[in-house]
Amino acid sequence: MEKHIGVIGGDQRILILAESLADKGFDILLWATDKSKVLSSPNINFAKSLDEIIEKSKVLIGPIPFTQDGKHIFAPLSQHSIEIQSLIEKLSGKEIVLIASVIPESVKNLCREKSVKFFDLYEKEELAILNAIPTVEGCLMIAIEKMPITLHSSNILILGYGRIGKVLTKVLRGFEANIYVASRKSSDLTWCKAFGFLPVRLCDIAEYVNKMDLIINTIPAVVVTKGVIDRIRADTLVIDLASKPGGVDFEYAREKGIEVVHALSLPGKVAPVTAAKYISEVLLSLLEEIWG
Amino acid sequence: MEKHIGVIGGDQRILILAESLADKGFDILLWATDKSKVLSSPNINFAKSLDEIIEKSKVLIGPIPFTQDGKHIFAPLSQHSIEIQSLIEKLSGKEIVLIASVIPESVKNLCREKSVKFFDLYEKEELAILNAIPTVEGCLMIAIEKMPITLHSSNILILGYGRIGKVLTKVLRGFEANIYVASRKSSDLTWCKAFGFLPVRLCDIAEYVNKMDLIINTIPAVVVTKGVIDRIRADTLVIDLASKPGGVDFEYAREKGIEVVHALSLPGKVAPVTAAKYISEVLLSLLEEIWG
Amino acid sequence: MEKHIGVIGGDQRILILAESLADKGFDILLWATDKSKVLSSPNINFAKSLDEIIEKSKVLIGPIPFTQDGKHIFAPLSQHSIEIQSLIEKLSGKEIVLIASVIPESVKNLCREKSVKFFDLYEKEELAILNAIPTVEGCLMIAIEKMPITLHSSNILILGYGRIGKVLTKVLRGFEANIYVASRKSSDLTWCKAFGFLPVRLCDIAEYVNKMDLIINTIPAVVVTKGVIDRIRADTLVIDLASKPGGVDFEYAREKGIEVVHALSLPGKVAPVTAAKYISEVLLSLLEEIWG
Amino acid sequence: MEKHIGVIGGDQRILILAESLADKGFDILLWATDKSKVLSSPNINFAKSLDEIIEKSKVLIGPIPFTQDGKHIFAPLSQHSIEIQSLIEKLSGKEIVLIASVIPESVKNLCREKSVKFFDLYEKEELAILNAIPTVEGCLMIAIEKMPITLHSSNILILGYGRIGKVLTKVLRGFEANIYVASRKSSDLTWCKAFGFLPVRLCDIAEYVNKMDLIINTIPAVVVTKGVIDRIRADTLVIDLASKPGGVDFEYAREKGIEVVHALSLPGKVAPVTAAKYISEVLLSLLEEIWG
Repeated sequence: MEKHIGVIGGDQRILILAESLADKGFDILLWATDKSKVLSSPNINFAKSLDEIIEKSKVLIGPIPFTQDGKHIFAPLSQHSIEIQSLIEKLSGKEIVLIASVIPESVKNLCREKSVKFFDLYEKEELAILNAIPTVEGCLMIAIEKMPITLHSSNILILGYGRIGKVLTKVLRGFEANIYVASRKSSDLTWCKAFGFLPVRLCDIAEYVNKMDLIINTIPAVVVTKGVIDRIRADTLVIDLASKPGGVDFEYAREKGIEVVHALSLPGKVAPVTAAKYISEVLLSLLEEIWG
Repeated sequence: MEKHIGVIGGDQRILILAESLADKGFDILLWATDKSKVLSSPNINFAKSLDEIIEKSKVLIGPIPFTQDGKHIFAPLSQHSIEIQSLIEKLSGKEIVLIASVIPESVKNLCREKSVKFFDLYEKEELAILNAIPTVEGCLMIAIEKMPITLHSSNILILGYGRIGKVLTKVLRGFEANIYVASRKSSDLTWCKAFGFLPVRLCDIAEYVNKMDLIINTIPAVVVTKGVIDRIRADTLVIDLASKPGGVDFEYAREKGIEVVHALSLPGKVAPVTAAKYISEVLLSLLEEIWG
Repeated sequence: MEKHIGVIGGDQRILILAESLADKGFDILLWATDKSKVLSSPNINFAKSLDEIIEKSKVLIGPIPFTQDGKHIFAPLSQHSIEIQSLIEKLSGKEIVLIASVIPESVKNLCREKSVKFFDLYEKEELAILNAIPTVEGCLMIAIEKMPITLHSSNILILGYGRIGKVLTKVLRGFEANIYVASRKSSDLTWCKAFGFLPVRLCDIAEYVNKMDLIINTIPAVVVTKGVIDRIRADTLVIDLASKPGGVDFEYAREKGIEVVHALSLPGKVAPVTAAKYISEVLLSLLEEIWG
Repeated sequence: MEKHIGVIGGDQRILILAESLADKGFDILLWATDKSKVLSSPNINFAKSLDEIIEKSKVLIGPIPFTQDGKHIFAPLSQHSIEIQSLIEKLSGKEIVLIASVIPESVKNLCREKSVKFFDLYEKEELAILNAIPTVEGCLMIAIEKMPITLHSSNILILGYGRIGKVLTKVLRGFEANIYVASRKSSDLTWCKAFGFLPVRLCDIAEYVNKMDLIINTIPAVVVTKGVIDRIRADTLVIDLASKPGGVDFEYAREKGIEVVHALSLPGKVAPVTAAKYISEVLLSLLEEIWG
């Protein structure tokens, strides 16, 4: 088997990825994408069929995200439509490794059933850390745009001290806001104390929200409940960064006239070029591991 | 003479100011504004005429800005139109102090001629420093929105190390950008070195612009000349914060396909409530000085 | 059983602890310490015997550290000498909880054997995080004192990105040093990149040490090996913060004329009052858990 | 006249300077120093007499400091003793420029009288800014060493917001102390507010000192008066960085049992190599100006 990498489906980002892999000397075989959008490179070729790719490649890179409808892989640049079920069956028992992003749990189970080796890039800790950076920048853009006051001197409560919380607090510090961090874990609260933020136990946030100008949630569970919302001022902005269904009782907040922005997928929106670069970096280090 | 303050013309902001002065115990007399927009307060009354205000008040607060057409004071909430020439003549030789913002040089000269004591709030150093804060936040909002990459790890050149430059560098630092600062003054460059920024002599910027992802100008003189623009990459964003006519050869930049955002009056747009609070603080400290 | 807390052995710090507990309303019984050094408080009494303490107390607080010779508890203020073996046997099978600091593994095993409930304060994550603060301040004090150059603009390599590494990098940043961080974990290195430090793979440090003015080790394993030392310049300072036996081949470094400071137990030396406060805070939260 | 630079008197630092100038291609003539301490360089020669130097050189570099006794230049490495009066007379009316550091006012007056061009390096703004860096590092070293608590979370009052105040606040921020800054100038206080420090009017410090753990003075006038000292707690550390006679009523502080450290000339003590580098940089830029 040669050092081929198959690339199937995806939007412009996946083509940028393919080009950067070709630049590193990998031989790329494309399928289910748009010929005209790819830079000419001796290392990039179009496959005659999906079968050719599967036969020749050691690694098969799928789109970002892997699927939108749950049945076909995401391939907006192509007329070919690739059914997930049939793709997995073709890969069944082969040496080839499927690398994709945001693979649904049902697809993962199918892969396990059919003995298909797969890797979800979005589960790489490094990518998750790096994605916190554009997420935070996008969040601050929204906050500055929506608030009638400066971040400077404002009272800000951040729910959660995971990856986003750590980057967010650090950047916000330069704005000279008063930064409160709520977490369930007492070691998180000690870290906040060490780093100069004001620690709040997650169970106590209802007592604090009333003095906040901005509340940013990063916890993927409904922590901004009716009881909490009842204590939030009408002029407070709430930004929810947690992926769907989010961490806020949105309907109740709307009833109460609290503005809530549910900001999702910020890296791709705010800094698409950087987001693509992150994926490429993580992918390359993964390929190094696979190729040994 | 009683402790009255006259307030004439202006938009909603001037009424917020009037209310905050009434809260502090000052007796306010209004003219050339809209009755219906003012909170009822025993300390706020409408004058019967401009003459009544001039007779009773020690201080006369004018609108922000003082005038838009150069002939009349800015009074968008009123049917009364007040000619500047006639206002100044009425004040001539009186004890009363005229306090306004952004007073044109011609009006200042008229005041001096007619022995009218005046004070331009926008010349207060404190207000200029404070206004740098929302200016910087607005500038960062624009940068995040317009750039396809993160501020993190980007190369940013800031032209000028005055008030905006000092606040901008400090806040940007939290984003982990590579920050270059250009100034004519060698002491500024030494300060930059001490504070961990990369100093560039203003005369050398043409050598640096090519590697920049973002260029922010704060110098009120055309420093981004044709020769500099010729070296700027097409994917670089330029934000000009200098007041009109700005610091960039805009026409030439457009020809060359360089995106330039001329961002003016950011405090009022980005953080109107904070901007009004700053004016009120500075006004109060000025009234303390006047009243002794 | 009453709400008594027994306190045995220890130096002045343990008496400060006893006083702060008495202030919180706990009844304290002392043994194997010096009467004259304790502030009179109605809540502090001397026990008639160790047995009385064991009988009346729900919690028994031992010294910091628990022992120096491995056989007796550390009790420098007392003529009574308490053998560990006999103490553990007295506690065997009782409800009472032994709380101490830096308990040797052998003593822990004995406790398990004899069914003695014990708790080592130094294993509390919170205390370990907090202790990083004075450790870092002490480390910087040593660096400033020993180096003939400023921290500003110097090249500094930090080995390890655990608790001390995280606090150290954050504080050092304010000094505007060039900060390199070496770690084995790739997620650590990604964090460093996100936070603006220069990541180095631990296996590659030999390639970097030559340009360093200061190397600070926090890893409890010999990572500064002969091969690494061979590449360190003679004017580089090495500070080892890892507990004995430390992370440097000290003998070889001495031969090569490299100055190495093995800085141990900095919290107690640099900021004894704060260090005592930290212990007291963590102890109180532990007592809350125990008393429920 | 050739491109010679005369160097007279001084300690080891002046020889380091001479070497770095020789490295840059200048021809150096030495006098009143120790031959054996200079690296052999084809560009460094010993003059036969002071007259030879004066005849051949365009610039004459004197020691740091220029004098200790007020009568002779500082020349600890030499048997030759050079009287200031006679040196100035030799230079009178010549083209040669005398460059020295910390020249007493009386000597400057003599130079003016005798038409001797001179330049005091210590009056260069750049050097003063740079020297703030090691001064601040030395100050923090002292604070960490002397205080029984951490800088972290402590209350610190800084008197003055000049060069040292600006660098000190910035570095201290990384330690997460509560930083108060006192100044007479209201624009300084506004800057402090913008940068996230707590502003205090200098006239109000007596109301604040009681809650401080550390007070650092940078103002060269007695601002820590008896009235202020009366309010300082016995466990507060005071560090005075103002040059003699300093800013503290030392005698009264001693009476009251307040520890005051008068820390002078920190750059040379804390970071002699960096301090010499700063002087060399500033000297080189001065030579560029002189040589045009």
